[in-house]
Amino acid sequence: MTRVGVIGGGQLGRMLALAAYPLGLSVTALDGSAEAPAGQVCPLFTGSFSDHTALARLAEAADVVTFDFENVPADAAEWLASRVPVVPAPHALRIAQDRIEEKRLFASIGVPTTTYAAVDDADSLAAALTTVGLPAVLKTRRLGYDGKGQRIIHTADDATAALAALGGSGLILESFVSFVREVSVVAVRGASGETRCYPLTENVHRDGILRTSVAPAPDGRFALQAQQYAIQLIEELEYVGVLALELFECDDQLVANEFAPRVHNSGHWTIEGAHTSQFENHLRAVTDLPLGLTDARGHAAMVNFIGAMPDRSAVLAVRGAHLHDYGKAPRPGRKLGHATVVADTHSALAAPLAELIALADAASV
Amino acid sequence: MTRVGVIGGGQLGRMLALAAYPLGLSVTALDGSAEAPAGQVCPLFTGSFSDHTALARLAEAADVVTFDFENVPADAAEWLASRVPVVPAPHALRIAQDRIEEKRLFASIGVPTTTYAAVDDADSLAAALTTVGLPAVLKTRRLGYDGKGQRIIHTADDATAALAALGGSGLILESFVSFVREVSVVAVRGASGETRCYPLTENVHRDGILRTSVAPAPDGRFALQAQQYAIQLIEELEYVGVLALELFECDDQLVANEFAPRVHNSGHWTIEGAHTSQFENHLRAVTDLPLGLTDARGHAAMVNFIGAMPDRSAVLAVRGAHLHDYGKAPRPGRKLGHATVVADTHSALAAPLAELIALADAASV
Repeated sequence: MTRVGVIGGGQLGRMLALAAYPLGLSVTALDGSAEAPAGQVCPLFTGSFSDHTALARLAEAADVVTFDFENVPADAAEWLASRVPVVPAPHALRIAQDRIEEKRLFASIGVPTTTYAAVDDADSLAAALTTVGLPAVLKTRRLGYDGKGQRIIHTADDATAALAALGGSGLILESFVSFVREVSVVAVRGASGETRCYPLTENVHRDGILRTSVAPAPDGRFALQAQQYAIQLIEELEYVGVLALELFECDDQLVANEFAPRVHNSGHWTIEGAHTSQFENHLRAVTDLPLGLTDARGHAAMVNFIGAMPDRSAVLAVRGAHLHDYGKAPRPGRKLGHATVVADTHSALAAPLAELIALADAASV
Repeated sequence: MTRVGVIGGGQLGRMLALAAYPLGLSVTALDGSAEAPAGQVCPLFTGSFSDHTALARLAEAADVVTFDFENVPADAAEWLASRVPVVPAPHALRIAQDRIEEKRLFASIGVPTTTYAAVDDADSLAAALTTVGLPAVLKTRRLGYDGKGQRIIHTADDATAALAALGGSGLILESFVSFVREVSVVAVRGASGETRCYPLTENVHRDGILRTSVAPAPDGRFALQAQQYAIQLIEELEYVGVLALELFECDDQLVANEFAPRVHNSGHWTIEGAHTSQFENHLRAVTDLPLGLTDARGHAAMVNFIGAMPDRSAVLAVRGAHLHDYGKAPRPGRKLGHATVVADTHSALAAPLAELIALADAASV
């Protein structure tokens, strides 16, 4: 049995563990909290991601270590990589952790991205506003997720307030992208260099948090282009494992927003909606097994449950619905679970998707 | 969270536990062996199924108790049922444990079965041979599984030898059914009485052990009839949960062989090949949740791995293959895992199925 260590014991680590067992793999997770949801389904070590004692313990318990969380200190990941194979390599984490490094990488491989400028004080903000124009978005360069650490800027006054609110330095100003919709591509690269892509996914966010995904995205005019960008990215990084690329779809082109060097919420639909789930393919990649098919099986829609879980019976009464309860305590804004519906056609998703959204909204706090 | 206790911690209990987590259910298993494979994925109590201390401990840890094994002493199940809800009710176990009771039930609801007679000594054997004719099969009435506890009889001499080999009493003589193929139906009945059936499955056994299943079974002339029999059976038993009915398909009719009051090896293909797996639907039924869709998703074939596991990479390199490794130590004749392939058409299953069978046969001991 190959032993996989996972840094982070959230719902992603939990779903990795559940996908690991049928493959004859075992998972041990490391998390800062003893209540981390992976701990309900696999062994869990408790410790800080920068604590070398905890990391060494995970290395002892694993033949290969991977991540359910990209904000692991890259130094810690590199320290760990000197003791046990770490997949994907810490290099990808380091780039994904810095929005400016990420944009430089996109530019270097010809993937369109937003106009941007680094902001570290009032002067650089003023210069950035000239370069980027308005409206724009001021973001922390590091540690942002689920819409946290960003402010939309319409006026120079907004800019000054946002600068103060976000800490005054280590920021990036990006042009505001007027998008038609948000889309993502989950791609996987095996240890042998083989690459595969899941179909383009259409995502809806609210308050910076993903609410629904639909795949394959209808009107896939840019689907092939998005997949090509994702493949270019994982090849450039010589990445091994699953990676998600988030893009804005504009009238005439795609604009890359960011990538996540891990399994991704916008790929949860693959559990029921694709031949091989993103979790299984990530595990296949990091343990050097052949990749599974990434084709869709019909059409799928996923709805996140945020803050509170809807009634379990009500969710399962929705035709074709599958529930994924992460076993987490309710808290406003917290992702507690999701449901996926599958159907033979895109239009047949509409009714069950609407039912699930209504249940999610009624429960959501 | 609803806590489900499972009597038996084999691969069926293990797959029940893995299906339980996404539903927000937890599973605790009880098994005679501390090495039982469910113990790798959920809490496992060790103890005999007739040990009231062990059963009481399981009752304490569970809101509802079910089975992964039908040869649990029905008295023990009834003792347990006085302490915690036991689903399905022990009544169904009691019938399934006695081949004569089982045949009487089939007859009472008009489900065709073999000609049979009870055998408890040489005289009743002689009488049975007159009633049943030759060839016939002499079986133990109780505790038979995977072809164990049965002998085919062609001559009166065979009969005498078989009587001695099988212990001389507590037996049943059944007419030998000249079947075209073996088929099964997995059906589920919810706590509210709602019933659903999976498509007819075609099964191939060797040495009494299931080797492959294909679903939906091609040439489904008798599919509807088989499903009707399964529904009659679960309605007559007022059964709650998943039940499998095994039948012989003859030239002109179906003949019921036996039923299993639990999830079943011939339903393993439902994990990838149906909208809701048999494991999830069993859990939905026993915890009083709405049942999930039992429709097939395309076409599926399952191959058992007996005695030794084939190389993991070789299995996963088969197009569309999914591996289920039960985490068991190899032993001749032991079911260690299975693989399922799915395809859009029945004919597209042929090539990957042949590859999987070749891998299984090369490894099998």
